[in-house]
Amino acid sequence: MPRIHEFDLLENKLPRGALNAITDVAGVAVGHATLIEGDGPWRPGHGPFRTGVTVILPHQGNLYAEKVAAAVHTINGFGKVYGFEQVRELGCLETPIALTGTLNVPRAADALITLAIEQNPHIGVGFAVTGRKGYASVNPVVGETSDGFLSDIQARPIGEKEVRAAVANATSGPVIEGAVGAGTGTSCFGWKGGIGTASRVLPSEKGGYTVGALVQSNYGRSDELTIAGVSIGTYLRPPDSVNRTEDGSIMIILATDAPLNGRQLERLCKRAVLGLARTGSTVHGGSGDFVIGFSTAYRLSDRPERLVEERPYLHLQPIMSAFSLAVIESVEEAIYNSLFMAETVVGRDGNTRHALPVDEVVRLVRGNGR
Amino acid sequence: MPRIHEFDLLENKLPRGALNAITDVAGVAVGHATLIEGDGPWRPGHGPFRTGVTVILPHQGNLYAEKVAAAVHTINGFGKVYGFEQVRELGCLETPIALTGTLNVPRAADALITLAIEQNPHIGVGFAVTGRKGYASVNPVVGETSDGFLSDIQARPIGEKEVRAAVANATSGPVIEGAVGAGTGTSCFGWKGGIGTASRVLPSEKGGYTVGALVQSNYGRSDELTIAGVSIGTYLRPPDSVNRTEDGSIMIILATDAPLNGRQLERLCKRAVLGLARTGSTVHGGSGDFVIGFSTAYRLSDRPERLVEERPYLHLQPIMSAFSLAVIESVEEAIYNSLFMAETVVGRDGNTRHALPVDEVVRLVRGNGR
Amino acid sequence: MPRIHEFDLLENKLPRGALNAITDVAGVAVGHATLIEGDGPWRPGHGPFRTGVTVILPHQGNLYAEKVAAAVHTINGFGKVYGFEQVRELGCLETPIALTGTLNVPRAADALITLAIEQNPHIGVGFAVTGRKGYASVNPVVGETSDGFLSDIQARPIGEKEVRAAVANATSGPVIEGAVGAGTGTSCFGWKGGIGTASRVLPSEKGGYTVGALVQSNYGRSDELTIAGVSIGTYLRPPDSVNRTEDGSIMIILATDAPLNGRQLERLCKRAVLGLARTGSTVHGGSGDFVIGFSTAYRLSDRPERLVEERPYLHLQPIMSAFSLAVIESVEEAIYNSLFMAETVVGRDGNTRHALPVDEVVRLVRGNGR
Amino acid sequence: MPRIHEFDLLENKLPRGALNAITDVAGVAVGHATLIEGDGPWRPGHGPFRTGVTVILPHQGNLYAEKVAAAVHTINGFGKVYGFEQVRELGCLETPIALTGTLNVPRAADALITLAIEQNPHIGVGFAVTGRKGYASVNPVVGETSDGFLSDIQARPIGEKEVRAAVANATSGPVIEGAVGAGTGTSCFGWKGGIGTASRVLPSEKGGYTVGALVQSNYGRSDELTIAGVSIGTYLRPPDSVNRTEDGSIMIILATDAPLNGRQLERLCKRAVLGLARTGSTVHGGSGDFVIGFSTAYRLSDRPERLVEERPYLHLQPIMSAFSLAVIESVEEAIYNSLFMAETVVGRDGNTRHALPVDEVVRLVRGNGR
Repeated sequence: MPRIHEFDLLENKLPRGALNAITDVAGVAVGHATLIEGDGPWRPGHGPFRTGVTVILPHQGNLYAEKVAAAVHTINGFGKVYGFEQVRELGCLETPIALTGTLNVPRAADALITLAIEQNPHIGVGFAVTGRKGYASVNPVVGETSDGFLSDIQARPIGEKEVRAAVANATSGPVIEGAVGAGTGTSCFGWKGGIGTASRVLPSEKGGYTVGALVQSNYGRSDELTIAGVSIGTYLRPPDSVNRTEDGSIMIILATDAPLNGRQLERLCKRAVLGLARTGSTVHGGSGDFVIGFSTAYRLSDRPERLVEERPYLHLQPIMSAFSLAVIESVEEAIYNSLFMAETVVGRDGNTRHALPVDEVVRLVRGNGR
Repeated sequence: MPRIHEFDLLENKLPRGALNAITDVAGVAVGHATLIEGDGPWRPGHGPFRTGVTVILPHQGNLYAEKVAAAVHTINGFGKVYGFEQVRELGCLETPIALTGTLNVPRAADALITLAIEQNPHIGVGFAVTGRKGYASVNPVVGETSDGFLSDIQARPIGEKEVRAAVANATSGPVIEGAVGAGTGTSCFGWKGGIGTASRVLPSEKGGYTVGALVQSNYGRSDELTIAGVSIGTYLRPPDSVNRTEDGSIMIILATDAPLNGRQLERLCKRAVLGLARTGSTVHGGSGDFVIGFSTAYRLSDRPERLVEERPYLHLQPIMSAFSLAVIESVEEAIYNSLFMAETVVGRDGNTRHALPVDEVVRLVRGNGR
Repeated sequence: MPRIHEFDLLENKLPRGALNAITDVAGVAVGHATLIEGDGPWRPGHGPFRTGVTVILPHQGNLYAEKVAAAVHTINGFGKVYGFEQVRELGCLETPIALTGTLNVPRAADALITLAIEQNPHIGVGFAVTGRKGYASVNPVVGETSDGFLSDIQARPIGEKEVRAAVANATSGPVIEGAVGAGTGTSCFGWKGGIGTASRVLPSEKGGYTVGALVQSNYGRSDELTIAGVSIGTYLRPPDSVNRTEDGSIMIILATDAPLNGRQLERLCKRAVLGLARTGSTVHGGSGDFVIGFSTAYRLSDRPERLVEERPYLHLQPIMSAFSLAVIESVEEAIYNSLFMAETVVGRDGNTRHALPVDEVVRLVRGNGR
Repeated sequence: MPRIHEFDLLENKLPRGALNAITDVAGVAVGHATLIEGDGPWRPGHGPFRTGVTVILPHQGNLYAEKVAAAVHTINGFGKVYGFEQVRELGCLETPIALTGTLNVPRAADALITLAIEQNPHIGVGFAVTGRKGYASVNPVVGETSDGFLSDIQARPIGEKEVRAAVANATSGPVIEGAVGAGTGTSCFGWKGGIGTASRVLPSEKGGYTVGALVQSNYGRSDELTIAGVSIGTYLRPPDSVNRTEDGSIMIILATDAPLNGRQLERLCKRAVLGLARTGSTVHGGSGDFVIGFSTAYRLSDRPERLVEERPYLHLQPIMSAFSLAVIESVEEAIYNSLFMAETVVGRDGNTRHALPVDEVVRLVRGNGR
């Protein structure tokens, strides 16, 4: 299936990165584990399952030992993310980011702890042994949206095995999109949503930095879908026209190679909502819409050797508008890719989320709804 | 000049109020004072002036004695608003909201204090005389955007006289839009911007409440302008094509008659950015984009007689999505009205902001850019 | 062991509740599960264990179906709490609050989900079945501090069994304090800390409301301890004088029967740090110091029958200072009780946290350090 | 009059700077303008006046051209500060900080604008002339507390003349404390409060940085005053024992020469409340308690020549606890100095705030209340 940029529907002001993916930010890797199991009626706690986990790694080293600058932003907080308080306080990230179904968050967070301990067996050892402070714990960061329409969410089937698999298969190449990993069971504008990604590159006189976005899309009523400014939802609805729910959520992950600190990254995160708006979202009351951003430009040692070191400092303000545009365009396009790349999924109780009929959409966009 | 709804360009999901204005919220009044003075070269501190002040009154009684529930929200904080801290703490508003040019804010705030003291001569008297607490001060709320392209902002010519005039002529009828009051000297997408307003009404099964928006528009590059999903900026640019600045700002005022408290109003305020996004805004780094929302549903006495009283409490969550839509649609349309209703203004140094050529825009929207 | 008030050391301005406990707020129940297992050297992942879980129930009904108004506040965010984003957004609490050791949070959160599903089997069913929105998920709230000095935290031994036990034995009577439940393995000022509680009652002319605090104390260097204004840490140090760590954390839970909404409760939560300061805390950089507050005054139905209902509204501002004092005094005293009531605990690797020598402390306070 | 440290009452853990003042942070200058005019009955709008303005300059160059990293924090937002939104967004300060009486804020802000324009005549010129962005405006930062008990606040007598005088006489030497400048008319714990300052120096192995605090104290009930842990308010009350008001406010300014960025400075600002707590404050509901912090370590050019430059980056986390202590101790002592150094002031209507009887206080502290 082609991604949206192949149809040349969008009026971009900034060029895409080579992969048009969050992995255009050098070092970033993405991995999925997908759980598709069972069919037929829902047996609460026992399936069927259409769920999974997607992990985003700022780098493939030991993230706990070499943290990266990060920020979080809450658009609408009807959600159950994990790890936000510490990122707000310290402005850094020390585990991969995991995305999964809502009620799986604790088990995915627990799995990230297991993995961090494996790499850093001194976690929990404390001062007595290490003679250093700051080894008390680890802060896993997990995002979520609810895949309950297609999957049994009561069972919480994503745990250590799945998270470990997602981390193991994470790669820095092209990102698999659509109904995969954390996007296996999600819905978007009444259609099958899922994982999508895109990227933008700033002009060289503005630093030439790359901004990448990855989304887990799971929001929107069918009449709201807007693509490239055309109200697709006015003309095209899913076969099963009942709007089973109007609420939903989106997780948005932003990456950049610009040397931004936590405060500056937070400004970027706040721009993501404008890309979301372009797709027709009205941020429903029951949305858990969250943004997590990080920079790969430098690493923050868990045990800095000196108190002060020289670091590149980016004067953000003169080029903030370019970053803003990069965030908006990459979030918008990542969402479209999540729809374009998702195949129809039949889940519990025969609940079905149809793939967006891409040809029809392309025709409508080109004809402006005609 | 007709307002945008007369062209039937927008696909609304919610009906407009009778006036399609913030004054559809019963009791709300809006007044302007416009200062157009001098021509030719800028003589810093002496004009020419293309500026003014616009006041929004939640009710026309004594606002200090009978406050209203309110909230504020900062989209991008490159701006010089006044009074936000106390609104955040207490969730209420105790003066009219004044909008003006950036450097005029202190003088406009000072004028609001003068007016509050006139109505409430016990301000500053304190406990000794009144035997009551809470009379120490008054919190004026003032918003701003910079009209420096057309007007001499160093002079700060808006003071008590202008604020008093704006309050005096405030009415609850139709709102004068365009290059008037605080919109006299502002620019939007390289065209003349200014004051715009619009409103939406929720379905009766969702309470039938009215949401009104009023904006002071002063942001956007000319290539960004988007109307009804059509990228007008791609096809149409101001005659003087130099983008003199890409930074700018918008003040967004929201009113409702729904009995929402400060916390709930804040949720509404956070949705305004989605309406802004629909117009093509990318929220530049130098934007001061702020939202102030209030409810007219009940009044908060400065001296409550009882500690506890019965009050209507609205379960917001079940209808939050409807409020979200009402905010988004009314903000989007208010911005369009600020452009559609503004006439060309020639300011200091002959700097000119042309009126948006409405016929051409309508043609482009209808033809989807052709 | 006597609680601190029995020594009459504190100069209170407000009277205590009957139990001097968070359970003085009618309906609130507290339960503990304590895990003490193994001795000798630490075998990572296998013990020894000196840990547990403490649950605070705003009421003993179905909290998911009948939520309570709530707020959260972060003093210093070096911590791994769960569920804060949704409380911030909606201003309510829909599960018991669980407190535990840091790395146990995900498993405790997972257990709270299990319990919520048992009581509310429609969680995850969604719109198709119920014809109602808002059943997608549940937001467990879990707080933590690290008990890694005494207990094997890598093993994460607190799960469904322990959470279920704590909920099952929750009572609204006197609260067991000290080295129990979530306080089993914590340290405070180099001494054994743990669970402590206290309460205050407002004067009847200020509503006569009760404010209760419960803490899980786990912070402070031994030289910082201050009781009733006397710098105990100057005169008295734990036998093993090595300061193994200076970082630590505290969870503070506030309850009230005053009809406060989420915004108002947040103001109360922000005052807790002043009670903390009175004990000598300097809020270290590695502290996860969090406050969660709730009101038992009314319940927020998961499925409100009408959009608007009459509710008591409390004018907080005239009596905010009284609430502030109630919060500060009850937090301060709750912390002292957590120290006074804790017995010496020997944990992994023979690590020992000694009970504060209460008699000596009382003598020092009475003699002002002499 | 001696400052508190001369009595050796406080148990400090960190040493003071040479001046024990905010001006120990190299480059920082403080200036006052004091307005004492008229006697007898209050004639609203015409005096008598017991007010003034205090300015704090991070450096004595052109602050608009060379900004400094800064942060703000609101403890309780019942106040009318100016300029906070932009500091939050950009993390920097571009004018001196002015402190004054509540209703004077707009006029003081207006005066700061005048001074900034004098030094930077391109303010408001905009892109057309400069070919650069970012010259639209200037963000004055002004703090306040209410001196209405002693002074006619309706008149707002502090304007350009007074602000200009305060800036002109600003020096980097010892700071005049007590009833001077913005402290001329304030009250603290029922006594005469005002301006106070203090400083602390971190150990050399923690960077040897200096932290300075300056306060404008105007809060507290007389029974709350606590000094060095002794409840002075229990034993000593002002002659005129009527508590005319319980509400009040404090402005706290923090300076450091450590190379901290805006995010890191915010963490320091959040610790100030713990110093405030040590003095007996309970942060009343009507308090406007605000903190502003800045670093003198480097300057942020208004027109950076390169996008990226090398800068010292301080790993704050390993020494955050030391900064926390430095903030707390310097804020606590600055408040005591504001009381110790203030002389009795008789104001409007003969209202009197008595100087704290220092000898008596010293005796009480030494005798622990006896």
